[in-house]
Amino acid sequence: MVRLRIALAQIDSTVGDLAGNSSRVLEATRAAAERGAHLVVFPELFLTGYPVEDLALRTSFVDASIEMTAQLARRLADEGLGEVPIVLGYLNRADLEPRLGQPAGAPLNAAAIIHRGEVVASTAKHHLPNYGVFDEYRYFVRGDRLPIFRLRGADVAVAICEDLWQNGGPVSVVAEAGAGLLVVPNASPYERDKDDVRLALCRRRAREAGCALAYVNAVGGQDELVFDGDSLVVSGTGELLARAPQFAEELLVVDVDVPAADPEAPYGEFGVDAQDGTSIVVERFALPGEPAEPYPPADPGIAARLDPLGEVYAALVLGVRDYVRKNGFRSVVLGLSGGIDSALTATIASDAVGPDRVHVALMPSRYSSEHSVSDAEELVKRQGVHSRTVPIGGIVDAFEREIELTGLAAENLQARVRGMILMGLSNEHGHLVLTTGNKSELATGYSTLYGDSAGGFAPIKDVPKTMVWELARWRNAQAGKPSGLPEGFLHPFPAPPIPENSITKEPSAELRPGQRDVDSLPPYEVLDRLLDDYVEKDLGRDSLIAAGHDPALVERVIRLVDQAEYKRRQYPPGPKITPKNFGRDRRLPITNRWRETT
Amino acid sequence: MVRLRIALAQIDSTVGDLAGNSSRVLEATRAAAERGAHLVVFPELFLTGYPVEDLALRTSFVDASIEMTAQLARRLADEGLGEVPIVLGYLNRADLEPRLGQPAGAPLNAAAIIHRGEVVASTAKHHLPNYGVFDEYRYFVRGDRLPIFRLRGADVAVAICEDLWQNGGPVSVVAEAGAGLLVVPNASPYERDKDDVRLALCRRRAREAGCALAYVNAVGGQDELVFDGDSLVVSGTGELLARAPQFAEELLVVDVDVPAADPEAPYGEFGVDAQDGTSIVVERFALPGEPAEPYPPADPGIAARLDPLGEVYAALVLGVRDYVRKNGFRSVVLGLSGGIDSALTATIASDAVGPDRVHVALMPSRYSSEHSVSDAEELVKRQGVHSRTVPIGGIVDAFEREIELTGLAAENLQARVRGMILMGLSNEHGHLVLTTGNKSELATGYSTLYGDSAGGFAPIKDVPKTMVWELARWRNAQAGKPSGLPEGFLHPFPAPPIPENSITKEPSAELRPGQRDVDSLPPYEVLDRLLDDYVEKDLGRDSLIAAGHDPALVERVIRLVDQAEYKRRQYPPGPKITPKNFGRDRRLPITNRWRETT
Repeated sequence: MVRLRIALAQIDSTVGDLAGNSSRVLEATRAAAERGAHLVVFPELFLTGYPVEDLALRTSFVDASIEMTAQLARRLADEGLGEVPIVLGYLNRADLEPRLGQPAGAPLNAAAIIHRGEVVASTAKHHLPNYGVFDEYRYFVRGDRLPIFRLRGADVAVAICEDLWQNGGPVSVVAEAGAGLLVVPNASPYERDKDDVRLALCRRRAREAGCALAYVNAVGGQDELVFDGDSLVVSGTGELLARAPQFAEELLVVDVDVPAADPEAPYGEFGVDAQDGTSIVVERFALPGEPAEPYPPADPGIAARLDPLGEVYAALVLGVRDYVRKNGFRSVVLGLSGGIDSALTATIASDAVGPDRVHVALMPSRYSSEHSVSDAEELVKRQGVHSRTVPIGGIVDAFEREIELTGLAAENLQARVRGMILMGLSNEHGHLVLTTGNKSELATGYSTLYGDSAGGFAPIKDVPKTMVWELARWRNAQAGKPSGLPEGFLHPFPAPPIPENSITKEPSAELRPGQRDVDSLPPYEVLDRLLDDYVEKDLGRDSLIAAGHDPALVERVIRLVDQAEYKRRQYPPGPKITPKNFGRDRRLPITNRWRETT
Repeated sequence: MVRLRIALAQIDSTVGDLAGNSSRVLEATRAAAERGAHLVVFPELFLTGYPVEDLALRTSFVDASIEMTAQLARRLADEGLGEVPIVLGYLNRADLEPRLGQPAGAPLNAAAIIHRGEVVASTAKHHLPNYGVFDEYRYFVRGDRLPIFRLRGADVAVAICEDLWQNGGPVSVVAEAGAGLLVVPNASPYERDKDDVRLALCRRRAREAGCALAYVNAVGGQDELVFDGDSLVVSGTGELLARAPQFAEELLVVDVDVPAADPEAPYGEFGVDAQDGTSIVVERFALPGEPAEPYPPADPGIAARLDPLGEVYAALVLGVRDYVRKNGFRSVVLGLSGGIDSALTATIASDAVGPDRVHVALMPSRYSSEHSVSDAEELVKRQGVHSRTVPIGGIVDAFEREIELTGLAAENLQARVRGMILMGLSNEHGHLVLTTGNKSELATGYSTLYGDSAGGFAPIKDVPKTMVWELARWRNAQAGKPSGLPEGFLHPFPAPPIPENSITKEPSAELRPGQRDVDSLPPYEVLDRLLDDYVEKDLGRDSLIAAGHDPALVERVIRLVDQAEYKRRQYPPGPKITPKNFGRDRRLPITNRWRETT
């Protein structure tokens, strides 16, 4: 057996920031070298950030990625780090003639093997995901090479993210060609309970490949995606050896004992049937260096998993924090109604950027109840956020003097006046506007276009109403005690930050006298179960009724959901925590006469 | 030779309206039968409409498509139309085990061959486009069968849309297997000058396949896409035999003389190398019926092409008309400033839905010049649209009494007050709000989020400012004389509908005293050339400078364009007339530190 010390660089990068991401590679490599690592592995497309979307199709961007990778290789060597090989995700291009249907410039979702000042080999993702949030057939051409390099007497293979998820391809080729360790850079976005699926997958693929597997995931927020880290190492028999925390950066250094490479295995290139209708060229070569000497292993530890609500809350905080930071905002503003949605959103914001950078506006109208104002004020007191009160009555009156609006049009007007006040404060003071709508509202269209949906980021857009309450209770329960979350995720409020009355009172939009959500929508516990079956599981009308949902309600809710597509398309992005957050992962035509209900 | 009379049903369908689209099939087949057609061909996915987006992944929708196709086959027979074979685009599914990376339910972008009450064969698109506005790897699995059916003594093959555009695949298989006629259902969206490309392509593929080719395109607007028709038939030597008009429905009936089928060619199935790394199963069979008797051919005609501006104008009118109609609106509302953008938008609206269904609001502020109001009033007079004046001063004052806004924030406030007035009128009266922004503004972010960008459809979002002026002049020049456009495209205004002063005056947003566009942007003729190179051609900074653009301007404009991504994502859809209209066809991350200019 050969003992390899590998460092899994579970760190954050920012899309497009080649120089900044490059510096992070340098830092992490230095830290790994100081800890004696023999190999450092970075997440998928670390150098460019992920996802790059149409930047992949821009010649100047791909050129810059390739050039920056070469520069970084030299710089690592110049700084005395050239002896530590690294595996770095970057954007490369294939040498292919242009043709229709092939992404412009033939970009590759690649990983470079860098050693002694040079890119000694490059591989690229073979299986390109093109479902859910992924559009990789649009952006990349398929990789068809698999490098296996000898490192200190052991063979190390490299595959990328989706190559682990789909059958056949690199994993099957590793099994055929033989290697001691398979390292896998990933940019695998968070979804509830994905960590369980991920571990099971890694165990299975390690056994299939017949070797240890090091899974390195990205961490951090990027637009709608939140990468949750959770990097891990399993042995060739599927035993979990090490695991990094969720949602936090970590340089996970692990000693893995792997079989010594077969000294008879010839260097060079050879084709292998990839068992998926394609073939892959294996490129076997050696990285020069000393063979491994025995040494006692470090104890990398297996980070504890977060509880289900803590996991979601951490994703929301990280999503907001990184969106604010990466887009260069210094503060946020939101409307505080006294209701639970804005109370939770404010709390997430306080945790994400600190209460001193959270600004709230109380915007009472003639229909606001007394408790609305007092509950909002109570939250301000508990959290110490900046607050101002802007009554909307005079502005609404000014509109109504010019145009007559009744019913829904008058209700929408109030929501829009509030949206405009927030946008005005944003433009004047540079705050990012956070919208406070939840997923149940977004699904059913229970919101006002350009009103409560106006803003730059929507922290709870993927959180159903029933879970809004759960998260509020969970967050209040963490006050004054250590949470299981990584350090810095929860602001140290000594007392529960959310007023109990905001959690327990009946939900109302307060846009007309005596209005209650249940006048327009079914009770949320009923609605959320139905939405889950219709939206996440894509069940049709008949299947929904067969699953036990009330037939009349099924018809009504399907109609509401189907008619709200335009509103959803106009909604700000927000952290994704489910398979279908109404972003790219669920998209219907606007002009659409299909009704499940007819 | 065998003479076949084929009917190309260049007609409109609506996404999701299976019953309505089905009725249209019946009507067109009846009309074709009355004209003696031997075969009727409908556009791609005619039964479901195109594009169906995530509806393709919904079991109930695919089931409904398959069931409706079978029903329609029976209904055609019941109504005495069973003897005329039809080729109908519909959604089918492949018999494949589910696996990760394969679209849920294995949907096929299919075409049914229907005869004597039954679906006698079904084929599916082989080449799936996944670039520009297309996401077909997300929605469909690849077809791998090619039906060739004997009809009245000649062999007819079927391929679908992209199968014509990409090399290899069905066209190459037809060349190998032999056929007299290749019919191709399409849903090929309009882009400027695409008709030229399309004809050249059809000529080339007909020669490659060694047979006549009938290209049947969809017509009508669907969200951002406008299908321009332009169906055509070419001979096996590439000679243009018949061509339908652009943008108008037409049942194009054409007699084509094709070689008699080889009587030795065996019926049954056989595999052919598709010359694209795959193989395709040819399914050769006969449709029972009489052999063709000689008869004199009809003269189908070759419709004249529209001039370049007429073509764009027709696309905009059709896009607006169909968006209004298919979404169930009866009227539109827009803000009329006296400037050229809103003047052109109002005129397109009048042409699309008639001036009696166009409502305009004049919303002068303290910064509106005298000519703004008088030019807007002049347009109202010339077109006879419904008009009201809603001064915004009092409302703006009411806001400013509550929050202090300066500079850009104060400018945005005015735009937002106008947006809210229009949305209020929309909610109160059911009008669709048309936004009036042009592509140059959208590209550079010269607009207000939730202000002038608020609305449901954006007729000129893909029209650069310089072309806005050209279209206005073109439209005025059509007054009182027959245009080359199809009937009903231009409202018969006796005099030029757009006031000359709106065309000739200097552009200004009028959000502060003395404001002019050139204070913030370069002259539009300079800007539009640069935007074309940066946005449409994806040139990087260095290439733009090498192409002769001013270096300082290049830096500035790139920065403006790159920073406006969030605003563009929130913009309403509008008819697409260029390769990149900032819809699905050009999409960057919001969080993006990449700057061409650094």
